[in-house]
Amino acid sequence: MEQVKVFLDESEIPRQWYNILADMPSPMSPPLHPGTGQPVGPDDLAPIFPMNLIEQEVSSERWLDIPEEVLEKYLLWRPTPLYRARNLEKLLDAPVQIYYKNEGVSPPGSHKPNTAVPQAYYNKAFGIERLSTETGAGQWGSALSMACQMFDLECRVFMVRVSYEQKPYRRMMMMTWGANCIPSPSDLTQAGKKILAEDPNSPGSLGIAISEAIEDAVADEKARYSLGSVLNHVLLHQTIVGLEAQKQLEKIGVYPDVVMGCCGGGSNFAGICLPYVRDKIHGKDISIVAAEPTSCPTMTRGPFAYDFGDTAMTTPFMAMHTLGHDFVPAPIHAGGLRYHGMAPIVSHLVKEEIIEARAFDQIETFSAGVQWARAEGFISAPETNHAIAAVVQEAQRAKEEGKEKVILFNWSGHGLVDLAAYDAFLSGKLTHYELPEEEIQRALRAIEKFPKP
Amino acid sequence: MEQVKVFLDESEIPRQWYNILADMPSPMSPPLHPGTGQPVGPDDLAPIFPMNLIEQEVSSERWLDIPEEVLEKYLLWRPTPLYRARNLEKLLDAPVQIYYKNEGVSPPGSHKPNTAVPQAYYNKAFGIERLSTETGAGQWGSALSMACQMFDLECRVFMVRVSYEQKPYRRMMMMTWGANCIPSPSDLTQAGKKILAEDPNSPGSLGIAISEAIEDAVADEKARYSLGSVLNHVLLHQTIVGLEAQKQLEKIGVYPDVVMGCCGGGSNFAGICLPYVRDKIHGKDISIVAAEPTSCPTMTRGPFAYDFGDTAMTTPFMAMHTLGHDFVPAPIHAGGLRYHGMAPIVSHLVKEEIIEARAFDQIETFSAGVQWARAEGFISAPETNHAIAAVVQEAQRAKEEGKEKVILFNWSGHGLVDLAAYDAFLSGKLTHYELPEEEIQRALRAIEKFPKP
Repeated sequence: MEQVKVFLDESEIPRQWYNILADMPSPMSPPLHPGTGQPVGPDDLAPIFPMNLIEQEVSSERWLDIPEEVLEKYLLWRPTPLYRARNLEKLLDAPVQIYYKNEGVSPPGSHKPNTAVPQAYYNKAFGIERLSTETGAGQWGSALSMACQMFDLECRVFMVRVSYEQKPYRRMMMMTWGANCIPSPSDLTQAGKKILAEDPNSPGSLGIAISEAIEDAVADEKARYSLGSVLNHVLLHQTIVGLEAQKQLEKIGVYPDVVMGCCGGGSNFAGICLPYVRDKIHGKDISIVAAEPTSCPTMTRGPFAYDFGDTAMTTPFMAMHTLGHDFVPAPIHAGGLRYHGMAPIVSHLVKEEIIEARAFDQIETFSAGVQWARAEGFISAPETNHAIAAVVQEAQRAKEEGKEKVILFNWSGHGLVDLAAYDAFLSGKLTHYELPEEEIQRALRAIEKFPKP
Repeated sequence: MEQVKVFLDESEIPRQWYNILADMPSPMSPPLHPGTGQPVGPDDLAPIFPMNLIEQEVSSERWLDIPEEVLEKYLLWRPTPLYRARNLEKLLDAPVQIYYKNEGVSPPGSHKPNTAVPQAYYNKAFGIERLSTETGAGQWGSALSMACQMFDLECRVFMVRVSYEQKPYRRMMMMTWGANCIPSPSDLTQAGKKILAEDPNSPGSLGIAISEAIEDAVADEKARYSLGSVLNHVLLHQTIVGLEAQKQLEKIGVYPDVVMGCCGGGSNFAGICLPYVRDKIHGKDISIVAAEPTSCPTMTRGPFAYDFGDTAMTTPFMAMHTLGHDFVPAPIHAGGLRYHGMAPIVSHLVKEEIIEARAFDQIETFSAGVQWARAEGFISAPETNHAIAAVVQEAQRAKEEGKEKVILFNWSGHGLVDLAAYDAFLSGKLTHYELPEEEIQRALRAIEKFPKP
C-alpha cells in the first residue's frame, strides 16, 4: 500500500508563525497616508485594528509565538494532512510527484480560519467586544463568524447583497455560528444609506461592503474591523500551512521543486509559500508560482504601483500589483480571486522575481477541477481550481522537458457550497473571458497621479 | 495543550472488516421469499447483486479481508481522526468525556463511501459494468457516484424528483463525479412510466426510486443494484469506523461506557458500534444506544416483524423493527432517518436488548446541533444531530447521577449542504412532530398477515 497522507501529531504543530519581513532581500515601500503622502504609523491604524495586531503588522521579528489559546482552537482541524495526489499523478502520466495541503478539513472548509482565529483572539485580548467585516461569497465571513463565537465576540458581517440573496449557504453558516449577517448596502451606515438613497435596489459590491464595515467599526470604540487577506499580519498567520508542510515533507525526505497556490488577495498562497520563499532567499533552487485568473490578472498584467486597497478609497496607499482600485473583474465563480490588488508582500516578491505569476482562464480551471475530483475524490473550491490548473500545466511541462519534479500546492478549500459553478461548467454555460488591454489601461488611469513606489 | 485528536497512521488502518454474524448470541430470522415463504438463497439475489457481495451478505466468518484496491481508495480519507469534544464537555459541565469519529472528512462528507467503495470494487471484480441505485437527499447517490468513478463503472442514480429539484447540490456532486442522475419517476422504467401516466407531475418517493433502480439493474445483465444501508454486507463494510475507533481509544488508554450513533437504516450506527457489541456479547459492561427521530420511531415504537424493505414490496421479507412498509414519515430534514424499517442486524440486537434505542424530536436535535457547531466548530448533518442530542442527554444523566462516563459516538457527516435546515430552525420555522399512536397502528395493519419471525 503506497502512502497517501502524512499526518503530524498535535504535539508537532508549529508553535510560531514565520514573518517574511525579517528576511526580505530589499526594503518594502511603506503604506502611505493618502492625505499627507507620509508613511502611516501605528496610531493611524488604531481606530481600525487593535494595537496588538498592528504590532504584528509592522513587526520585523522572524518568528512570532502562537498563543496557547489560538493553538487550542487550531487543534480542532490542524495540523491538516499533507496528501500525495497519486491518482492524479497516474492520470497525468508525467514525471512528477504532487503533494498538497488539505485546508478543506477546517469547519468552514477553507484556509480562512487560520487567520480568523488569531484575529478574534487578539481583539478579545485587547478588550474589543465586537468585530465588523465584509464578505463577498462568504468564505471569509463564515470563518470570522466561527472564530468570534469561539472567543465570545459579537460579529457583524456586511455581505454583498447579491451574494446574500443568491448564495445563501455561507450566510446560513454565519447565522449558525451566531453572527449577524447583513446584506450590504444597509441602512446601518452612512455609506450604505447614501447608496440606498441613490438606488434602493443596489446589488451592492465588495467596495461598498468594506466601506460599511470600516465605518461601522470606527464608530464604536468597542468594535474593530477585520480583514481576511492582503495585510501582513494575515499572511503571517497563514504561514502555519507552509510550516506544517515543511515538517511533513521532511518526514518523508522530500523537498519540493515547485510550490504553487491560487492567488486573489494572497493569503492562502503566502501561507504555503513564504517558508519556502525564505529558503529561496537563502539560496535554495525552487520555483514559487502564483496562479491568478485571466479575468483579474493583477500580477501578470497590472503594474507595481501605489493604490488604494479598496474601491471606496478609504485605506492607505499600498505598494502592490494592481489593476486600479476601480477595476471591476468579470463575474467569475472564483469570487475570492476577484480583487484588483494583491498583498504588498506577495507583490514585492513578484517585483523581486522571487515569485512567478501565471494566469488561467476560468474554463481551464474547471476542466482541471473536474479532472481532480474524478481522480482524487475531493471537489475543490473554484479558487483552488486555479492552483490545480497550474499543477496540471507544470506536470505537462515536466513531461515535455523529460524532467522529474516534486510539486507542492495548497488545496485551499472544498467546493461543496460552490457546486452551482460546476453545474454551469458541466452544462457548457461557462464562458471564456478575454480581457481587452484597453480595459486595463482605462482602469489604470485612475491611479496615474498617485505617488510611485 | 490538551489533546483533541487521535490519528492513526495509514499503516495502522484495519485490514479486515468485522462480521457480527459470527458472534450473534441467538440465530437471526432469515429473509423470506414473499411468494414461497421460504428463506431466500444466494441464487434468488443473483440478478440484483454480484455473487461476491451475496457471499458477504450471508457469510458467518468473523473477519473478512479488505481488498488492497479498496484500502488504496480508503486512504483518500481514512483512517479518519478520532476527536475529543473538549469544548462541548466544558459547555455541558458534566462528568463526561466525549469522543467522536469524524466521518465528515470523506470527499462527499459522510460515512457512505465506506461501503460505496467496496461495493463498486466487488461489482467491478465480478465483471459488472454499471451500477444502479436510488437516492433521497443524495448522500448515498453522491458516495456511490464517486466510488463508481474510482473503479471506472457507469453509475445511474434515480433521485426522488422533489429532492432533485429542491436539493440541487448533491445532484451536482454526482454529475461532477461523472454519474448519470435521473429524476424519479422517469420514463426509463416501467415502474416510472406507470406513475407518470397517472400523475405526470409526481414528486416521486424513495419507494418509487427503489423500484426504478432495481428494475433498471435487473433488465441489464451487465448492471447490478446497489444499496447504501440496511443489508448485512453494508453494515460489515461500515465496521471499519468502530475498528479504527477501538485502536485510537486504545492508544490513549480509554474504553467507552456508552457508544452512540444516529440510526436510520442502521449503517453508520452499526459501523461504530458492532465491534463494541462483540465486546458486550463477551461480557463487557457497555451501553450501546441508537438515536432515532420521534417522527419515524422504528425501534422505539415499531414491532419486530417480517416486512418488506421497500414501499413498493419488491424485496424479500426481512425480520426487523418496522412501522410498516407504507408508513410515510413526516418530512423532517434528516432525510437519511426517514426509513420505515431498520437493518435486520440492528433490529435483532435491539430485540435481544443488547442495543437500546431512544427517540429525539427534530427541534431538540437542531438545538443540540447548533450548540455543537458553536462549541466544536463543525456543522453537522441533520441526521448526525440526533446522535449529538443523545450525547447531550447522556451527559445530563451522568450529571444528575454524579457518575463519570466516557461517551463515544459517530459524527457521521457534515451539514454544509443541509444548511437550509439550520436556517429553518434558527428562524423558528421548524415544528414538533407528535406522531399519533393511531397512525402507527394504521400503518402496521399492512403487515398484519405477514409471517412472524
